[in-house]
Amino acid sequence: MTVRSGDANMRASRGISDQEQIPVQAINLAAKLATFSEYWQPRVVGQFNGNDLMVVKVKGEFVWHKHDDTDDFFLVLNGRIDIQMRDRIVALGPGEMFVVPKGVEHRPVAVEEAHVLLIEPQGTPNTGDAKTAVARKVI
Amino acid sequence: MTVRSGDANMRASRGISDQEQIPVQAINLAAKLATFSEYWQPRVVGQFNGNDLMVVKVKGEFVWHKHDDTDDFFLVLNGRIDIQMRDRIVALGPGEMFVVPKGVEHRPVAVEEAHVLLIEPQGTPNTGDAKTAVARKVI
Repeated sequence: MTVRSGDANMRASRGISDQEQIPVQAINLAAKLATFSEYWQPRVVGQFNGNDLMVVKVKGEFVWHKHDDTDDFFLVLNGRIDIQMRDRIVALGPGEMFVVPKGVEHRPVAVEEAHVLLIEPQGTPNTGDAKTAVARKVI
Repeated sequence: MTVRSGDANMRASRGISDQEQIPVQAINLAAKLATFSEYWQPRVVGQFNGNDLMVVKVKGEFVWHKHDDTDDFFLVLNGRIDIQMRDRIVALGPGEMFVVPKGVEHRPVAVEEAHVLLIEPQGTPNTGDAKTAVARKVI
């Protein structure tokens, strides 16, 4: 990734303060993933129309959950995951994408470590329940 | 990708007719890209909360344009593209993502063929202008 002119200039021209957390620049997903090791703790790496663009490392079984108000986007970057639903399992490898429709119970499972791109509206609890959700970190 | 139980069953249980164009199943982006060869003609491969998830093959220079009402999401899957803006160029390779903020003029350029994942609200004209936009095809 190369940014050939100053990020600060563009941000200033758009009235964006340096304190804003999401930079207006290219995002290398592998580089972002290399900055942390915890499983099931998505990191916010960008934003799109009020949605958080997140990378996550997963291994093992997540909890069964659903999101009543939003679809749930998964794109596998490395490794393999299963999206378990009550009546099916969808297996995903690198370059494979799946959207769990809103309201559908699901549980992501990975036998080995896998890396996934997630998209969710800002504020969506990752477990479907604000009481048990992990805090969303921006990197 | 493996769907281990019938797609039709789930669709029926959710009240979805077989005529609906977006299947509830995993999406292999490379397989979708292999089905067409035209440049700058995005194919809709899924949907997420009213957004179209699209793959596109690009080569050469697109037109300068902007979207006043939506950010513009790019994730490079293969090859390299430059996102030219009036005061900078952001160069992207595989696994690199960039979101052009709404209202910012930009022009994607690729010296060699590149493959890109795009996300835009349904109905967004790819040129920023419905009069010149390419029809959005679902595959």
